[in-house]
Amino acid sequence: MPNLISGTGSFIPSIVKANEDFLTQDFYSEKKVKLPHSNEIIIKKFKAITGIEERRYLKDDLMSSDIATQAAINAINDANTNIEEIDYIIVGHNFGNVRAGETQSDFLPSLASRVKHDLKINNPNCVAYDLIFGCPGWVEGVIQANAFINAGIAKKCLVIGTETLSRVVDPFDRDSMIYSDGAGACIVEKSDDSSGILSHASQSYTVDEAYYLFFDNSYNPEKREDTRFIKMHGRKIYEFALTNVPAAMKAALDKSGVSIHDVKKVLLHQANEKMDEAIIARFYELYNTDMPKDIMPMSIHKLGNSSVATVPTLLDLILKNKLEGHEIQKGDIFLMASVGAGMNINAIVYKY
Amino acid sequence: MPNLISGTGSFIPSIVKANEDFLTQDFYSEKKVKLPHSNEIIIKKFKAITGIEERRYLKDDLMSSDIATQAAINAINDANTNIEEIDYIIVGHNFGNVRAGETQSDFLPSLASRVKHDLKINNPNCVAYDLIFGCPGWVEGVIQANAFINAGIAKKCLVIGTETLSRVVDPFDRDSMIYSDGAGACIVEKSDDSSGILSHASQSYTVDEAYYLFFDNSYNPEKREDTRFIKMHGRKIYEFALTNVPAAMKAALDKSGVSIHDVKKVLLHQANEKMDEAIIARFYELYNTDMPKDIMPMSIHKLGNSSVATVPTLLDLILKNKLEGHEIQKGDIFLMASVGAGMNINAIVYKY
Repeated sequence: MPNLISGTGSFIPSIVKANEDFLTQDFYSEKKVKLPHSNEIIIKKFKAITGIEERRYLKDDLMSSDIATQAAINAINDANTNIEEIDYIIVGHNFGNVRAGETQSDFLPSLASRVKHDLKINNPNCVAYDLIFGCPGWVEGVIQANAFINAGIAKKCLVIGTETLSRVVDPFDRDSMIYSDGAGACIVEKSDDSSGILSHASQSYTVDEAYYLFFDNSYNPEKREDTRFIKMHGRKIYEFALTNVPAAMKAALDKSGVSIHDVKKVLLHQANEKMDEAIIARFYELYNTDMPKDIMPMSIHKLGNSSVATVPTLLDLILKNKLEGHEIQKGDIFLMASVGAGMNINAIVYKY
Repeated sequence: MPNLISGTGSFIPSIVKANEDFLTQDFYSEKKVKLPHSNEIIIKKFKAITGIEERRYLKDDLMSSDIATQAAINAINDANTNIEEIDYIIVGHNFGNVRAGETQSDFLPSLASRVKHDLKINNPNCVAYDLIFGCPGWVEGVIQANAFINAGIAKKCLVIGTETLSRVVDPFDRDSMIYSDGAGACIVEKSDDSSGILSHASQSYTVDEAYYLFFDNSYNPEKREDTRFIKMHGRKIYEFALTNVPAAMKAALDKSGVSIHDVKKVLLHQANEKMDEAIIARFYELYNTDMPKDIMPMSIHKLGNSSVATVPTLLDLILKNKLEGHEIQKGDIFLMASVGAGMNINAIVYKY
């Protein structure tokens, strides 16, 4: 029997930051020169490419580990899990806890330890660790949980992705508009039928790609040189993802033995709408097959890119019937796939 | 057949920082009051408890990921491994890359991605991730590698622990004298005889213990409030470790079926000499057995506490015959055990 996701949960922060909220922001280029266009034009172009209309920011008094716990509670309740039976807590993130207005990442102790503390789990044999794998960190956590169960060292695992990218963005970089905050979680355990994780694939591309996403100074030349922010080479990432993500998805699907015609949904990391559309088109091209309608649910328009949180949040929204026009029925096959800093890629083929 | 450690490597930074180098440092208490004793007395007491005479600091132009790569190269050469056959690179650390003189942790991309980049590994199926599990991160990485091999998703794994604690210490806190820099690594792969990992145990204590090691402001009341450093509740950790580390070691040993009388060495995380001596004494007490002479190799006197790097460095020194009075022969049983931020504990029973 495979291992399955027995419950999901998510936390969507309450502060809505709309595109219009960036109308008065000064934007600079990579070369630290003020962008020549008006913000109206910059934002219009941004929305056309990314699909993002608004994104969510966390309230100042909360941190990544707090919303990880909230998402975890939702997943635990959904799975009807006794918290003392959890063998692993795996938390994917990229920057630890960052306090509003500060610049240091705090992951001492690990966010997983904080979540376990906040969940009031007593069992010392529940092992809590953080996993750093870029945006694909939550999907990779599910793959690691699956391996621990298959290796016989775990029965139930709590896997969380949590991020507060709003606290590590350079406001003078228009890419800052992509990023968002959020958390998603699930419980992974042994299935009692044929449903669950059918296959998976993971990759790290590092020869040329390691620093496509990186940590660097503000584009505003007047800002302190000792503070760094999330930065990316967007065009390179776009081209990289277009070539390699469909191939990794195909590798996972071929391993599962499932026909492309039986795939009902593909849940992609919500990175950028145009990029995601190109990835899915290329994926179907690899099979010389027409792309079915409504194959790819998207949450990016309203939720932005919350890194490790996008895939579990999307899954949770669909399974809880909160994403209009998309549902997953018992027996349906779907894919989850992600790409991000590392550059890392992964994919899971799943039978619901 | 179990999985074994087929090669080890370490990197010991070149800058020797002696206890005397702290003679002119101002030390403050947790309550932000200047310590009443002279530095001669503070340092004498420090040495009596921790055993530390000197520690190693990394040169300003190197970072955690750089020395991780150096330790990895040594382990790869020792194991005579083809780098393109490595399936996983697992890097344990606590603070990412911290540049000398700066306060931000940089782990975008993960240190594992940087190491893979620096090793010039082409194979995209070699999955690189960072593991945050406090000081026991390297031991836990070995346990995860072991699980991946047992689950059939890996054949060879590179596991590294790397840390530059000198860059996250509060110089006004006498505990700063404990911390050190370093890196250690190993290759884990399938054994072709009965040697290798016989059993293991891992625990996370978080109800009362989660914040025994934490990130907080300087003890010097005049220092900026927005910069935080590694901090610990030393006495609580001591008492916690004394109760729980011997029990975890016993759990692992009992699982292996090996008699306490067959244990030839115990490699403990080099946290504090008095604490390590008390742990090992308590461990033998649990078996109502006399502690054998020379059971516990120590490197803390000259190398300090380099967190995730202590156990792999100690193992590497012994196996390369660089730790006087200690050797491990083919067939010998030894334990590796660690304790640290989380609070996490783990132990491995190993047949060489």
